[in-house]
Amino acid sequence: MIVLMTDFGLQDPYVGIMKGVIKRLSPLSEIIDLTHGIPPQNVPLAHFVLSHSWQHFPDGTVFVSVVDPGVGTGRRPIALRAGGRYFVGPDNGLFGFLWDRGFEDRQTIHLTNTEYFYHGKPAGTFDGRDIFAPVAAHIDGGAMLSEMGCPVDEIEVLPPVECVYRGNETEIPLLHIDRFGNLIFAMTRERCEAKIRGQAFTITLGTHSVERIADHYDEDSPLVALYNSYGLLEIAAPSKSAAEMLGISRDHPFVTAVLSIKPQG
Amino acid sequence: MIVLMTDFGLQDPYVGIMKGVIKRLSPLSEIIDLTHGIPPQNVPLAHFVLSHSWQHFPDGTVFVSVVDPGVGTGRRPIALRAGGRYFVGPDNGLFGFLWDRGFEDRQTIHLTNTEYFYHGKPAGTFDGRDIFAPVAAHIDGGAMLSEMGCPVDEIEVLPPVECVYRGNETEIPLLHIDRFGNLIFAMTRERCEAKIRGQAFTITLGTHSVERIADHYDEDSPLVALYNSYGLLEIAAPSKSAAEMLGISRDHPFVTAVLSIKPQG
Amino acid sequence: MIVLMTDFGLQDPYVGIMKGVIKRLSPLSEIIDLTHGIPPQNVPLAHFVLSHSWQHFPDGTVFVSVVDPGVGTGRRPIALRAGGRYFVGPDNGLFGFLWDRGFEDRQTIHLTNTEYFYHGKPAGTFDGRDIFAPVAAHIDGGAMLSEMGCPVDEIEVLPPVECVYRGNETEIPLLHIDRFGNLIFAMTRERCEAKIRGQAFTITLGTHSVERIADHYDEDSPLVALYNSYGLLEIAAPSKSAAEMLGISRDHPFVTAVLSIKPQG
Repeated sequence: MIVLMTDFGLQDPYVGIMKGVIKRLSPLSEIIDLTHGIPPQNVPLAHFVLSHSWQHFPDGTVFVSVVDPGVGTGRRPIALRAGGRYFVGPDNGLFGFLWDRGFEDRQTIHLTNTEYFYHGKPAGTFDGRDIFAPVAAHIDGGAMLSEMGCPVDEIEVLPPVECVYRGNETEIPLLHIDRFGNLIFAMTRERCEAKIRGQAFTITLGTHSVERIADHYDEDSPLVALYNSYGLLEIAAPSKSAAEMLGISRDHPFVTAVLSIKPQG
Repeated sequence: MIVLMTDFGLQDPYVGIMKGVIKRLSPLSEIIDLTHGIPPQNVPLAHFVLSHSWQHFPDGTVFVSVVDPGVGTGRRPIALRAGGRYFVGPDNGLFGFLWDRGFEDRQTIHLTNTEYFYHGKPAGTFDGRDIFAPVAAHIDGGAMLSEMGCPVDEIEVLPPVECVYRGNETEIPLLHIDRFGNLIFAMTRERCEAKIRGQAFTITLGTHSVERIADHYDEDSPLVALYNSYGLLEIAAPSKSAAEMLGISRDHPFVTAVLSIKPQG
Repeated sequence: MIVLMTDFGLQDPYVGIMKGVIKRLSPLSEIIDLTHGIPPQNVPLAHFVLSHSWQHFPDGTVFVSVVDPGVGTGRRPIALRAGGRYFVGPDNGLFGFLWDRGFEDRQTIHLTNTEYFYHGKPAGTFDGRDIFAPVAAHIDGGAMLSEMGCPVDEIEVLPPVECVYRGNETEIPLLHIDRFGNLIFAMTRERCEAKIRGQAFTITLGTHSVERIADHYDEDSPLVALYNSYGLLEIAAPSKSAAEMLGISRDHPFVTAVLSIKPQG
């Protein structure tokens, strides 16, 4: 199975063309879309989406990820094996989440063997069609990574988005606003629970605050905080868009929520 | 075959993740998208769309419908069999169109058996991934509804959207505006023809009116009324958006057209 | 394999319904989306997209193209065989690119045999469901074009979008703005190279100009001109939208770039 994620959108035929190329080379491959709605050139968001999605797909799945502002330049086209799946795309940080997890099966190849490309020399403007789709088709068809290029020792890793801890206060950066206007923050359930440890707390976002973690969205409250399906802290508005309610746009450069543990006693 | 309809949109990976879960549990299942563009939490529109689509799919199709403002609350996750197809989703009105049609094969189950869920206990924020996709995969793979939970006697049914008849005048509520700006009204061809019965009539919408039913969109007229592919009365503007022309927005709370039979003699 | 291209968008269930109809008639057919984001009734853009996509799909692929402002009128529903693929849709110019290429296998049929339609007589508002999807399913299932209607000698061909050559200056019309805001012009690489032939040149667009053809998008320059993956001249802004930067909207009625060869000596 081949899973596609790009920033190509669905207006243009670019995604369809990649599927055509796959089907020419590997007629039995099944193709599933993860999303093609990554905003143009937003590598960090693509990294976030892929890192929270790949584990829900079967072993052996080949992920093709094309968010590629450097297409045609010196940035390397790569293929990785890790955690029982395969990943194909540009080496620009998209696959950083795979790097430090200690996968025993990890293998990384700089794709240099043009025999696995679409028509030999790529055009330099659409490596999704010319390199990544055909390489994925060949992998799904049983080709060995080791034949496709040279081993790679290091890949690009994006700087992590991290909380800032200051005593009883934790600044938690916003990672993503989803379709529902839910605000997804860079703090895992585990970290958040370890910080709270049963103590009273406030999570403040602008002029709003919440003082408990809800079990679900449908609370009788203008805003709820909960641990979402990614296992991350999320602030949502029941049956509304929290982003809209709070006036936070999808560009949201530097929004942070603050978790304050209340002093006891 | 499994058909998906949600309000998740295609920007986020939520739909892709549901497909991954299905493929893990039932690798041979084919998956088709009905639409993921239902506006967030719009259960009535999802009901409308599903009720006019399911009959075009093969016998045995499993429909997964996730428009679910109450996810994680007490609203029941259910699976139904009716009309030769299967339907899986929250019991919030989505499946009301199946209720009064006298399907002899109807069977409804409250999904309580966590063995058919994704990872046992659902997170409470994404039952599409945790309950509905895996249950659909199991049904498509041949599991029996009766093993998945307890029989249900009644399901939620939305209040019907109905015409108001006042002698020679009929008020017809707007149901939906489609991508082309076509205005789809809550009156079937059968009802409309029974009302008109060859008499002269006017259909009035705001300051506009039409006095005949067209056969197709491409008329030499600013507005046309016709029976659309759902078998419903529709008002359209040839090669334009009728909604835009008439200044009707997609929120359209209470737009009605009026069918007036002209007094004879 | 069946490939779909329409102007239906993905909000409504129209595309999903076409897939249901295909699966009822030909359960083993695979279905792939080229795009459903053609702007409503934009036949020239659909023609452009299809003409640059079909060659990347396997031999035997059946393309269903439904951008059909004249649905239900006298315009003919047709099926073509050409270049080893099949094409099904309205005869309104969508398939003009197939006409003058000298395909030896070309065969064109006016679809009149209602045995291959969905439910006999089409509704006249949704031939995608009633004619084109079922005909494609039958072709993919092995039916002969010749049984589906009468041979056709001529099809509609759109007027070509062409450069205007005036000595050292060439006016090049804008064809399309893609998702990235890249501006795609009606001049092939071959024509452009034949015009430039190593001479110094300027390509002017509004108040901006470029004086070389780049190899890829990621240049240190506000605008780049390059030959894109369609083999056409494109003007792009590295990691930005050139359309936005230049204030060119997607309606762009009559935008042209001017290629000027510099006088030598």
